[in-house]
Amino acid sequence: MPAPPTFLSWVDASTDAFISRLSHAVAIPSISGDPAFRPRVQEMSDWLNAELKKVGVETKQVDLGTHVMDGQTLPLPNAILGKIGSDTNKKTVLIYGHFDVQPASLSDGWDSEPFVLTTLKDGRLVGRGSSDDKGPVLGWLAVLQWHHETQTPLPVNLRFCFEGMEENGSEGLDELVERERDGWFKGVDCMCISDNYWLNTRTPALTYGLRGLVYFKINVSGPGRDLHSGVFGRTVHEPMTDLISLMSRLVDAQGNILVPGVDDMVGVADVEEREIYEKLDYSIADVEGAAGGKIALSEDKTTVLMGRMRLPSLSLHGIEGAFAGPGAKTVIPAKVGGKFSIRLVPPQTPDAVEPLVKSYLESEFAKLGSKNKMDVELLHSGKPWVADWKHWNYTAAIKATELIYKQTPDLTREGGSIPVTLTFAEQLGVNVLLLPMGRGDDGAHSTNEKLDTSNFIEGTKLLGTYLYEIGDVKETGK
Amino acid sequence: MPAPPTFLSWVDASTDAFISRLSHAVAIPSISGDPAFRPRVQEMSDWLNAELKKVGVETKQVDLGTHVMDGQTLPLPNAILGKIGSDTNKKTVLIYGHFDVQPASLSDGWDSEPFVLTTLKDGRLVGRGSSDDKGPVLGWLAVLQWHHETQTPLPVNLRFCFEGMEENGSEGLDELVERERDGWFKGVDCMCISDNYWLNTRTPALTYGLRGLVYFKINVSGPGRDLHSGVFGRTVHEPMTDLISLMSRLVDAQGNILVPGVDDMVGVADVEEREIYEKLDYSIADVEGAAGGKIALSEDKTTVLMGRMRLPSLSLHGIEGAFAGPGAKTVIPAKVGGKFSIRLVPPQTPDAVEPLVKSYLESEFAKLGSKNKMDVELLHSGKPWVADWKHWNYTAAIKATELIYKQTPDLTREGGSIPVTLTFAEQLGVNVLLLPMGRGDDGAHSTNEKLDTSNFIEGTKLLGTYLYEIGDVKETGK
Repeated sequence: MPAPPTFLSWVDASTDAFISRLSHAVAIPSISGDPAFRPRVQEMSDWLNAELKKVGVETKQVDLGTHVMDGQTLPLPNAILGKIGSDTNKKTVLIYGHFDVQPASLSDGWDSEPFVLTTLKDGRLVGRGSSDDKGPVLGWLAVLQWHHETQTPLPVNLRFCFEGMEENGSEGLDELVERERDGWFKGVDCMCISDNYWLNTRTPALTYGLRGLVYFKINVSGPGRDLHSGVFGRTVHEPMTDLISLMSRLVDAQGNILVPGVDDMVGVADVEEREIYEKLDYSIADVEGAAGGKIALSEDKTTVLMGRMRLPSLSLHGIEGAFAGPGAKTVIPAKVGGKFSIRLVPPQTPDAVEPLVKSYLESEFAKLGSKNKMDVELLHSGKPWVADWKHWNYTAAIKATELIYKQTPDLTREGGSIPVTLTFAEQLGVNVLLLPMGRGDDGAHSTNEKLDTSNFIEGTKLLGTYLYEIGDVKETGK
Repeated sequence: MPAPPTFLSWVDASTDAFISRLSHAVAIPSISGDPAFRPRVQEMSDWLNAELKKVGVETKQVDLGTHVMDGQTLPLPNAILGKIGSDTNKKTVLIYGHFDVQPASLSDGWDSEPFVLTTLKDGRLVGRGSSDDKGPVLGWLAVLQWHHETQTPLPVNLRFCFEGMEENGSEGLDELVERERDGWFKGVDCMCISDNYWLNTRTPALTYGLRGLVYFKINVSGPGRDLHSGVFGRTVHEPMTDLISLMSRLVDAQGNILVPGVDDMVGVADVEEREIYEKLDYSIADVEGAAGGKIALSEDKTTVLMGRMRLPSLSLHGIEGAFAGPGAKTVIPAKVGGKFSIRLVPPQTPDAVEPLVKSYLESEFAKLGSKNKMDVELLHSGKPWVADWKHWNYTAAIKATELIYKQTPDLTREGGSIPVTLTFAEQLGVNVLLLPMGRGDDGAHSTNEKLDTSNFIEGTKLLGTYLYEIGDVKETGK
């Protein structure tokens, strides 16, 4: 049985209510990567927990303990487990989402206050977390709301896992999944995560692969405090000089990773594999449009797609402890931390890459002949993941997409990381589907992050319809 | 006639009053390099102007107009001109100081609030501007206060020039000096600036040379906005990758400047010149003690001293627009500005060095084959300066130092820059003396900047005594 037409028309009719609920969620700056905002992440957990209860979900807020960040011991925000239905004649679907967000401030270059959801004429809903990942989470909430208010039984049993540390390494979640494998998650048949994006701005997509991540900080220190460059320039070894030199040895201007052995782990694509990427609805104009500049690494669409989906990438994010403000400050910073991360693809793993990075940086630092101190910190990591896209879980999602969007979805691998995807796949041994709500130009982690109203609305219908298609699946087993 | 003993004993007796006046001055965060604090710099100008009037100085606050900084047009803080005496039988001494300060915040690693003067048990007065340059300016104020309150005529005529943009390129001052050369500054015989430091922590110094400065910002941009490194990693040219690569090509870990032609402008020291540095009361332990780490570029004292006094230096200060906060943010910054400066020595000039830096960076950027945009901005600059230390102005200061400290001062060249020194020397054609109040470990521009109470008090006596020694000078002419 397909999704009830009354559900679909109700979603259309509820647009304003959904936007106002999203505004409320965006207004809570649940930034997990900044210690100062940790209480707001917990506030977001409490808010979402209350919303889930209103629509009939049995929930449990789980204390994940504490972790140490920037030298401080901080409480982890409560994760939320949810449950509806235990009908053994129905499939049980596990839904994952996260309610924390990336840092954001007007000074980063936003056109409007990042934590005030702003609706633009063209339908864009601009705000931090609108697309990553509060919009999709509220999409699920809407599906549950209709079934609750209309007393309509769901076509499947549902289990939920929502966390507040996804943007900061999903601290504590691995342990939770392991603990609940035979508890809260017992009997789960498949899983759906809506936390990524279409490849472009026009074609819905299903995603069956993700890159992993290793995020490093290179610490260089020497002076007891910041120094005046006039008084100390050319008398002492300057930490910034050493750090910049090390960071310059990690990646070249064409995106090639210079850490020996890292690029080599990944084989070259054969003709058959290239075809997968050639088929995708994508162009250089798409990537440059989304990036907002004519800066693609290649003029060949397939090369660019493979760089994003089947190759590792190394990005230099910034430096902690150096002068970052406006104006001209003639300081020699005493202690600087250079931040960079590498996106990983199979067969790469954090365990295999970490020692390569550390030993390379240590040997390069030794070459400098500096008297400063250097160490490399792994801030967090996650393995890459690839799923079987011929599984019934994907078949249901393809059918649901065709029903709602009248288009066959692109089957993609994504460049981003959702480390828990792999945790769930490995711990529960079930097929995991990534079902994106937003478009390729939503700008997650960026300034002016947005979710298009049409994606919010049609995406909500898609999530509901997907559940009905799962309900029709005849195959048994995971 | 030497300085009156009653003046010297009054200074000792006024210690608490002087510290409380310094506390008031430090409490005004007159940061000239941060647009947000510009009104506080003007507030400092108004406060100092009122203090000068109280001690009988005829003053004039001069509107220096506006300037553009970080894209904003900002009013420049009023400079203060002051005048006491026009006795043609006395020498006329021009005093310069500045009332603006470097940026500072607790988060930089200060042990106490930077804008609250904190007196430590060992007599250190900790606070931003305590030593650079509010302490010395208040030292002059104290000398004037005693003569005013005791109705004692000064041994010389005085002219004053205090500015509020010294830490940000002394914007507007060159024009002021040129305008007032035959006006307010007419008849000046010599000049004294107290805005630098002893070479060590035990020997008073006179300074006859300063390094110049060229401060650059390398701007690299490409994307229309910040990007997600998962979605865009290895698909686009990343501005940070280009910037870090360029910054790494400027200086090596041993302090050698890699911009072709810059180091070559300065000749090698012959035996006679080396002797000047070998004579100075200085050790590797001094530089490492002041730096707070065993990070000297050489074990040879003379090499380190020449690196600071007679060689150019290049320091990398930081990056504007990159991720600088705590935690882990997986961002590809859209627009980044790398900041670095070169300290110059004769015969180097900003005009000679700027084109070398720009053309080198442009050619290195071209080698990267990046589609990003790059440009190099000169934020500010100042020529280097060397004075005749056999002039009567120096003879008087040496005698005054011997009277107060019972020590012969080190004759030094300083690594820092006070661009206006050269402006005054060139415009007025007079001998300029740098008469430091603070010690080599005061930490100007750094965290926990301090001035020792003994330097504040003895230094105040020294400034007064110096005026009396000038009063005794028989030589005529500048």
